[in-house]
Amino acid sequence: MSDLKFPKVGAYRFLVEPFHCDFSDHIFWGHLGNAMLNAADYHSSDRGYGVSELNKIHKTWVLSRFAIELQDTPVSYDHLIIETWVEAAMKFFTSRNFAVKNADTGHVYGYGRSVWAMIDTDTRQPTDLLSVHDGLIMQYVEASRPCPIANPGRVVVSADAPFDSSFVAHYSDIDINGHVNSVKYIEHVLDLFDVEYYRTHRLQRLEIAYVAESHEGDELAFYKQQTGDDAYAVKLVRRGEKNETVVRCSVKFVKD
Amino acid sequence: MSDLKFPKVGAYRFLVEPFHCDFSDHIFWGHLGNAMLNAADYHSSDRGYGVSELNKIHKTWVLSRFAIELQDTPVSYDHLIIETWVEAAMKFFTSRNFAVKNADTGHVYGYGRSVWAMIDTDTRQPTDLLSVHDGLIMQYVEASRPCPIANPGRVVVSADAPFDSSFVAHYSDIDINGHVNSVKYIEHVLDLFDVEYYRTHRLQRLEIAYVAESHEGDELAFYKQQTGDDAYAVKLVRRGEKNETVVRCSVKFVKD
Repeated sequence: MSDLKFPKVGAYRFLVEPFHCDFSDHIFWGHLGNAMLNAADYHSSDRGYGVSELNKIHKTWVLSRFAIELQDTPVSYDHLIIETWVEAAMKFFTSRNFAVKNADTGHVYGYGRSVWAMIDTDTRQPTDLLSVHDGLIMQYVEASRPCPIANPGRVVVSADAPFDSSFVAHYSDIDINGHVNSVKYIEHVLDLFDVEYYRTHRLQRLEIAYVAESHEGDELAFYKQQTGDDAYAVKLVRRGEKNETVVRCSVKFVKD
Repeated sequence: MSDLKFPKVGAYRFLVEPFHCDFSDHIFWGHLGNAMLNAADYHSSDRGYGVSELNKIHKTWVLSRFAIELQDTPVSYDHLIIETWVEAAMKFFTSRNFAVKNADTGHVYGYGRSVWAMIDTDTRQPTDLLSVHDGLIMQYVEASRPCPIANPGRVVVSADAPFDSSFVAHYSDIDINGHVNSVKYIEHVLDLFDVEYYRTHRLQRLEIAYVAESHEGDELAFYKQQTGDDAYAVKLVRRGEKNETVVRCSVKFVKD
């Protein structure tokens, strides 16, 4: 039926190394997020609209929203398969989903959802992603495959959310794009909870909205409020004249 | 000649993912260090003296010294082979070496050296590593293979080395052992240098001595002194009544 060079759904193997795991031997969500974003990178590169290809025409992908929801968390030495596919593509945004499975048993740990924009690397402005290779991405849209977790919604953090802590972005936070790496924000958010809390709670869902870029040397302040039972909303503000919000994030834990 | 189940030198493949790389697309030394320590873990596990095996008899490996020296630095999508072997084993210490190669070209990026002790997990005291499985580790000693970088020496940081900065150990710093992960110290040390410095300098050698453990919530202060052209010695002190030194580290950069 299809003359596509690659299947719509890509599948990528990934071994959970002990050094990817926290005190309780469960994978750090940051490492899992990395593996998912890597899968997205491989999937789009193989199909002709990856970052290297886009860079040639002065465009790139920008991650706008990312949500991960797990029913249980992989542990060290688990062989995972990350599946990823494009659910929809519109002029300025595309949504990409993920499934996180055990490669040996087929058990599904959970799912991910992400929203991406394409920008012009000269103007940093949004650009029509359907114009790339005559809308090639549309050929790979897989709308029928279920991804049974909620879409990333609007993360609301009230103006009076209390200050929690701050950090300064350093060398190891910065990636090839010259700004703080998407996953590093997740690591810093998860550091707002202490080991004792993780001992009695399991992270179930994390959702993050990338609002603005931040750079090395920026002082970044977390404001954190409780929004429900073991649910928190967090915003990260760049200290300065404007006190601009950089990311908003919600996390939902469940008692273990 | 040998009836060993495995060769003395183990070789492990490793792909440099884009998310393992810094602003200049070169692998973070922390990620490389992780891959090397993973290789050590696989090598020792396969040969019957890995951590899981040791835990059964209430023993474990503790990393005491670690040195990495690279002539050039892998970049994203490089396929690496990490080779590792035991160079020597004495009653209380064993030394393990590493070579970091390109899997496609055979090019050697550099080498690593490490020194490990074995401790009793009940008493936390050093234990005779040659007593495990009747000195099994001795069968795997490979003393003739060259590792052409200097041994880890004594890192000297003078008492008046100036204070640089401090951080508090959080959830993502802590590993399965319940204390700050060996590689996390490396990441924190490398964050003492800014992106502009890395833009004009390449890290050539890093050497770290693990002196004491630190834990979540510990406030850890870096003291850093210049010891030569683009060479620095750093010590990390746990703030408290004793102001105990946790790690000592030296780094040597070269102008790029």
